[in-house]
Amino acid sequence: MADESLFDFLHMEIVSHIYREQQSSKEEMDHKDRAVCVSVLESMGFRVGQGLIERLTRDSPSFKDELDVMKFVCKDFWTKVFKRQIDNLRTNHQGTYVLQDNTFSLLTQLSNGKQYLDQAPKYLAFSCGIVRGALSNLGLDSVVTAEVSVMPSCEC
Amino acid sequence: MADESLFDFLHMEIVSHIYREQQSSKEEMDHKDRAVCVSVLESMGFRVGQGLIERLTRDSPSFKDELDVMKFVCKDFWTKVFKRQIDNLRTNHQGTYVLQDNTFSLLTQLSNGKQYLDQAPKYLAFSCGIVRGALSNLGLDSVVTAEVSVMPSCEC
Repeated sequence: MADESLFDFLHMEIVSHIYREQQSSKEEMDHKDRAVCVSVLESMGFRVGQGLIERLTRDSPSFKDELDVMKFVCKDFWTKVFKRQIDNLRTNHQGTYVLQDNTFSLLTQLSNGKQYLDQAPKYLAFSCGIVRGALSNLGLDSVVTAEVSVMPSCEC
Repeated sequence: MADESLFDFLHMEIVSHIYREQQSSKEEMDHKDRAVCVSVLESMGFRVGQGLIERLTRDSPSFKDELDVMKFVCKDFWTKVFKRQIDNLRTNHQGTYVLQDNTFSLLTQLSNGKQYLDQAPKYLAFSCGIVRGALSNLGLDSVVTAEVSVMPSCEC
């Protein structure tokens, strides 16, 4: 529906705006330019994630451990932000968590399969930031990265 | 709720990003710099508005006249984007329309009253673009401006 599209469209505009402004002075973007764009998007996401989790957890009881926090992120947080729950949560019980979303909403507008796989990182940076921001406000410092092997599924 | 906040937070991030990048090389922004920022935000909104209205009108019958289009924008479109209907629509029947929203969602985060009135334009540019984009895709070329006399109400 259109209210979800609002965020999707706005997100696409930001991605293209940030890539365009970085590229404006050059003919082609190198690895470093792309890293700057990803980092700008990621830090935008970080602040949005912080804001969102603050509202979402206003009436929640405190969490009993890290896993409890991760479950909340996979279920409640993911549903609010990306309109669905995480499909699969795995952990090595040593602080590494893998969240798998098989139909990641920000990738569904891209062609399925492997054709545009190299374009995926720019559409994931903001979301990684959102997750890192949310975890940070819940007291967990983290490194969040995303991997896509086949669109529109995503692991982070 | 958080799903609305997602758009609000993202919108705030974009506004501050665009103002920051414009200001980066200077000590203070002049009138021209501010106009550039407003124009960047407005054209982002334009494209988002085009995308949204395309989805929203997919199953709608065609509109019989300009007023019919404006009513759709005030009711269905406004509700989808800003979560409420327009409070008041006035027209001079010569192509000028005034839409009044007494609790405009993108201004409710700012302090009520007149204290931050000078900050309002930057939070309205994107929305003006959204409306202009929507109207443009419905076949109406328009000029959309916004006015705020007391927060959080807005006329455009």
